[in-house]
Amino acid sequence: MRFVRLIIVILSVSLQTALGQLLVPSEKPDRTQQLQIERGYGMFMHFGVNTFTGDEWSDGTTPALKYNPSSLDCDQWVRVARDAGFRYVLLTTKHHDGFCLWDSKFTEYDVASSPVKTDVVGAVSKACKKYGVQFAIYYSLWDRHEPSYKDPDPQKYIDYMAHQLTELLTNYGPVCELWFDGGWDRKSENWGLERIYSLVKKLQPDCAVGINLTIVHKEGSGDAVLPDLMTENNKYFFQYFPSDFRLWDPKIAHKADKKQYLHLGKSYYLPFEHTICLSKEWTWFQKPNPRQPRDLDELEELFYWATDNDNILVINVPPDNTGRITETDANAVIALGQRLNIKKGKPLPRNGRFISLGTMSTAGSVYANDITGYGPQCAVDGGMQTRWASADTLTELVVNLKESDRFNKISIFEYQDEHKSKDPNDIFSNQRLNRIQTYAIDIWKDNSWQTIFTDNRPMGDCKVIRFPMYYRTAKIKLRILKATAPPSIYEFNVIDCEASK
Amino acid sequence: MRFVRLIIVILSVSLQTALGQLLVPSEKPDRTQQLQIERGYGMFMHFGVNTFTGDEWSDGTTPALKYNPSSLDCDQWVRVARDAGFRYVLLTTKHHDGFCLWDSKFTEYDVASSPVKTDVVGAVSKACKKYGVQFAIYYSLWDRHEPSYKDPDPQKYIDYMAHQLTELLTNYGPVCELWFDGGWDRKSENWGLERIYSLVKKLQPDCAVGINLTIVHKEGSGDAVLPDLMTENNKYFFQYFPSDFRLWDPKIAHKADKKQYLHLGKSYYLPFEHTICLSKEWTWFQKPNPRQPRDLDELEELFYWATDNDNILVINVPPDNTGRITETDANAVIALGQRLNIKKGKPLPRNGRFISLGTMSTAGSVYANDITGYGPQCAVDGGMQTRWASADTLTELVVNLKESDRFNKISIFEYQDEHKSKDPNDIFSNQRLNRIQTYAIDIWKDNSWQTIFTDNRPMGDCKVIRFPMYYRTAKIKLRILKATAPPSIYEFNVIDCEASK
Repeated sequence: MRFVRLIIVILSVSLQTALGQLLVPSEKPDRTQQLQIERGYGMFMHFGVNTFTGDEWSDGTTPALKYNPSSLDCDQWVRVARDAGFRYVLLTTKHHDGFCLWDSKFTEYDVASSPVKTDVVGAVSKACKKYGVQFAIYYSLWDRHEPSYKDPDPQKYIDYMAHQLTELLTNYGPVCELWFDGGWDRKSENWGLERIYSLVKKLQPDCAVGINLTIVHKEGSGDAVLPDLMTENNKYFFQYFPSDFRLWDPKIAHKADKKQYLHLGKSYYLPFEHTICLSKEWTWFQKPNPRQPRDLDELEELFYWATDNDNILVINVPPDNTGRITETDANAVIALGQRLNIKKGKPLPRNGRFISLGTMSTAGSVYANDITGYGPQCAVDGGMQTRWASADTLTELVVNLKESDRFNKISIFEYQDEHKSKDPNDIFSNQRLNRIQTYAIDIWKDNSWQTIFTDNRPMGDCKVIRFPMYYRTAKIKLRILKATAPPSIYEFNVIDCEASK
Repeated sequence: MRFVRLIIVILSVSLQTALGQLLVPSEKPDRTQQLQIERGYGMFMHFGVNTFTGDEWSDGTTPALKYNPSSLDCDQWVRVARDAGFRYVLLTTKHHDGFCLWDSKFTEYDVASSPVKTDVVGAVSKACKKYGVQFAIYYSLWDRHEPSYKDPDPQKYIDYMAHQLTELLTNYGPVCELWFDGGWDRKSENWGLERIYSLVKKLQPDCAVGINLTIVHKEGSGDAVLPDLMTENNKYFFQYFPSDFRLWDPKIAHKADKKQYLHLGKSYYLPFEHTICLSKEWTWFQKPNPRQPRDLDELEELFYWATDNDNILVINVPPDNTGRITETDANAVIALGQRLNIKKGKPLPRNGRFISLGTMSTAGSVYANDITGYGPQCAVDGGMQTRWASADTLTELVVNLKESDRFNKISIFEYQDEHKSKDPNDIFSNQRLNRIQTYAIDIWKDNSWQTIFTDNRPMGDCKVIRFPMYYRTAKIKLRILKATAPPSIYEFNVIDCEASK
């Protein structure tokens, strides 16, 4: 036993030595992470064979000939990103289907075999230089086309990846981030991650590496930790080591997100990168009939939420089958950037202070009387996966505040009923239907409730209420006057907006 | 006959002499009108016995005891007006019911006979001085309480009015405007208007006088002219002479509103004062269950529309039965003032140039094939009473533009179905239900239609679409994708927003 333990120590030490300069136990960001946190805001772009078939995922059998943008304009993609204030563009160079957006020497399943042979990786990285936007790469570990992937020896496919990543990290200038996806299809030890990570760092020392579903409950397990639970340091473990940042697409981190995660007994600093869709319906690849962008208010609040606390946000803005970002999507993200007033070289804008966070709250009713699961505390806990759910349609939520705290903004993230698309190809898409139709906000003043806001339009994913002056109160009430089903609220945030300025 | 004619000429000349300095034929504003146009934006306040009964009009029998505000705070009214950027407050000193908001020596039907004896006219005019807001008076000609009103000799009641107006114009400092209502209940010659007008000008030379339904199609008739028709100079006539400005509550003037109106062969300059409700449901007196304020976008566009072209806007913000403006209403108008960025002593902000006004337009269908009544031209004619109405639910409107004109904003005023309130006391209130649920805006570019905006939320009274950049196109299309009934549009405005700045 002592001998075995010694071997483990020796192995561990040699591993530390091999990766020593690469990922160091720390309680603060290293240079790569610091650069990533300062970037903070990127444009995710899903583009590939799926853009032409209406699929979200395909199995690697879609013919390369299907890839056929009628007026491919990668310059427009990055111009939109620049105009919108995005600081980097994150491109799906290869999705699970294995189709490559560049002419890879190691496969024929790429743009060079398609009707439109433009090297999209090249065109985007070139436009990034032109517009002063950084360039980042999404690359699927899982590959449903490449024959070596199915070889009993996992090294065969790891070699393939190493070759392709060498192409990507050598031929296209600086790459600020590498986003690996699909790790669930193999055991984590069968991806050659140490080798891949070392290769990346050798070719691009400042490139931040992340692997989707980074963190697990138990070391060596595959049970990923919801970002909502990541409110304690040194409680959870790496599934994929080494990684420079955490991912769980498309989840939203907790407001009290913590950064310390364990690997072999050491604690590492790891920021979280959020990946959300511009569309309300969570589609990643653009569909023939483009989906409705989220409302500006929701995008603004999600931006603040996701970039607060030294975390990062990428918003997916997929080009359509003509090879351009739609004007509708472009308008939405550019309008968002203008509203946020993002300035090049300046820190990203911040939201105000949440004076309601973690306060006492009560509700008219709770679904199935399940206080732990759906109690009113879930609406002010800072977690976007937990929610207060009521039992009645006409109900109310009361949140206690400190009367010394002022506020001038409220944001409410309402739970939505999701209905799957009727299109069988469209497995990820859904329609979101809100419940709350008419509602009021009251504050407790002079020993009675005083209404300060009413709305008779549907609440929706995220309602932002801006007051033209500050209020102070010991308690605030959301009063539901009309709803199509018992209301449910992810978060009810009472915000002091000048506090952070 | 010749003798009769001579007498008429002599009478006419003496009338001209008597009123000579008061109202002069002109093609430009006189001093009073110029001051009124520069003020431009006022807060209308309906308050009185009806505030406590839920009525819009009452017949003069409501006991004065009903008037009983629990915490009357006229200072708050004017503070809200000041905070919202209103430049004057227009108070209903006496509505059709005859109840007076001051202690009039000439009636007992006033606040002095009520449980709360505060002289509201005094308190408001005092607060106006304190907050630097001008003071204006609404006074109903029609009086359903005052006994002298029913006297066969019309002079009796004219004397009563003269006495009351002398009180109002003598005891409360400067009054910038006098708003007369209810003229329809007598022939215009039976109101003693020359006497009243002269009295007002003697006591308050700068006070602008207006009488609701000012303008008629034929001299001496009662057939009032819709403001939508007022697009030609010297075509229509005074019903009430003299008047300093035009009124037809609550109509909206035409975008090409003209200012010259005739009386006895002479042409006079007359601006138009718009009177609209803050609430979506057109209630003037506050109801026990306060109504939803209009959306900020609609208020902003109505502000621009109504104050453009040297016209004037008052928005009705009625105090509730506690004697205060509700926080909800206060928030709405203060937020509007902040968004408009109204500055004391500066000209009022302006909208951009309407590049769609009077252009050619086509529609997918027209209601009952009535092109004259409901054709697509009605949506770009600058008139808020005319509208395009379609025959189909899924239809479109195409508006031709000059390709040299740029735009970055669209505002759409959608027709609403009105449903009367179920409350029998609430005869003026209605619910407004919109028809268009999902829609897109396309522009013609490179020989095809390109979508630049989509929305899957109900359009409503006024949808404003702001683009983060300018577009230029030869034609623009509103495409309806979902509607609950055949859509109808009052105005579809394509606007170049920097043009006016």
